[in-house]
Amino acid sequence: MYYPKGINDLIDKLKKLPGLGSKSAERLALHLLKSPRGEAASLARSLMALKDSVRYCSICFNLTEGDPCSICSNPARSKTEICVVESPHDVVSIEKTGSFRGLYHVLLGLITPLEGIGPDDLKIKELIARCEKGGIKEVILATNPSVEGEATSLYLLKKLKPLNIRITQLARGLPMGSELEFTDEATLTRSLEGRKEI
Amino acid sequence: MYYPKGINDLIDKLKKLPGLGSKSAERLALHLLKSPRGEAASLARSLMALKDSVRYCSICFNLTEGDPCSICSNPARSKTEICVVESPHDVVSIEKTGSFRGLYHVLLGLITPLEGIGPDDLKIKELIARCEKGGIKEVILATNPSVEGEATSLYLLKKLKPLNIRITQLARGLPMGSELEFTDEATLTRSLEGRKEI
Repeated sequence: MYYPKGINDLIDKLKKLPGLGSKSAERLALHLLKSPRGEAASLARSLMALKDSVRYCSICFNLTEGDPCSICSNPARSKTEICVVESPHDVVSIEKTGSFRGLYHVLLGLITPLEGIGPDDLKIKELIARCEKGGIKEVILATNPSVEGEATSLYLLKKLKPLNIRITQLARGLPMGSELEFTDEATLTRSLEGRKEI
Repeated sequence: MYYPKGINDLIDKLKKLPGLGSKSAERLALHLLKSPRGEAASLARSLMALKDSVRYCSICFNLTEGDPCSICSNPARSKTEICVVESPHDVVSIEKTGSFRGLYHVLLGLITPLEGIGPDDLKIKELIARCEKGGIKEVILATNPSVEGEATSLYLLKKLKPLNIRITQLARGLPMGSELEFTDEATLTRSLEGRKEI
């Protein structure tokens, strides 16, 4: 109401984005206004291009520009292991470690009854179909260690068990660099249960 | 490098904006990707429109869509007082208080020798010209109480004093709701110097 309409319009749209409040939206809008015309225009172009160029891989449902994605079509990757994750973001996190050389399957969500998200809203059918086709030796369940993540993993375990595939889960335990003193009880319990002989 | 090019492009552009780091840029890009096509497109349109529709008022250099701006052209506002501020953002802050009914003059910056910004880079000539035209009874210097703000105020004071106009500055003192115990010494000194009989 105090800014000209063009600025208010942009502020209104920016503040609906996750992590941006009124103040940061205002700051961004004023920054874009001051910046050279090319900068705002190129941001606008990237926004438009995003929707046109990026899609989900038809095999693993990771984000990709070509189909199948660069991981599914990479001959150097092991085709016998599938790592199941919640979102494309998780694929990036695991790829950054460089310690997994198999394939992925992105569920595009977790089972969340409170939000009305059931197994049929996720890419679970597609995962089961991939496993039924054969050739898969191990499925690594890599959902978040949250209530929804654990529930989804349990559901998948039940569905995949009859297929006679090795099913594993990411280890739970103390995060590196943490201190016992400040570790919550659930984590400590899991780290005790999962203790290993060295 | 882990995301498709279209997403990386957008992330790179977003993380150059003030207040956005890599993580929040990534989060924003993935959100926009998931959101309905209309949302990203309308954000892109607002970005383009911003540059075309918004300009600086030719009198006070506030942001505006029409020229002169709605404050300069409002017949209900007193034409004898000018409040001098650093940026359009400050105009909004003062307007929100509803306790000033005069005109503004936006300097579009402060004198900052370290960044090579001198008096000639700001709208100071234009302020002096407005005052020289006559009809102005009071100039309120409302720059930030920072080193650059105080330096700019002092410079303006020197330039405007010969014109025989009343020159005032926003009061310095304790902010409302603060506690003496946690107030810095400079503020406390200024609040003592500026004490008023009640």
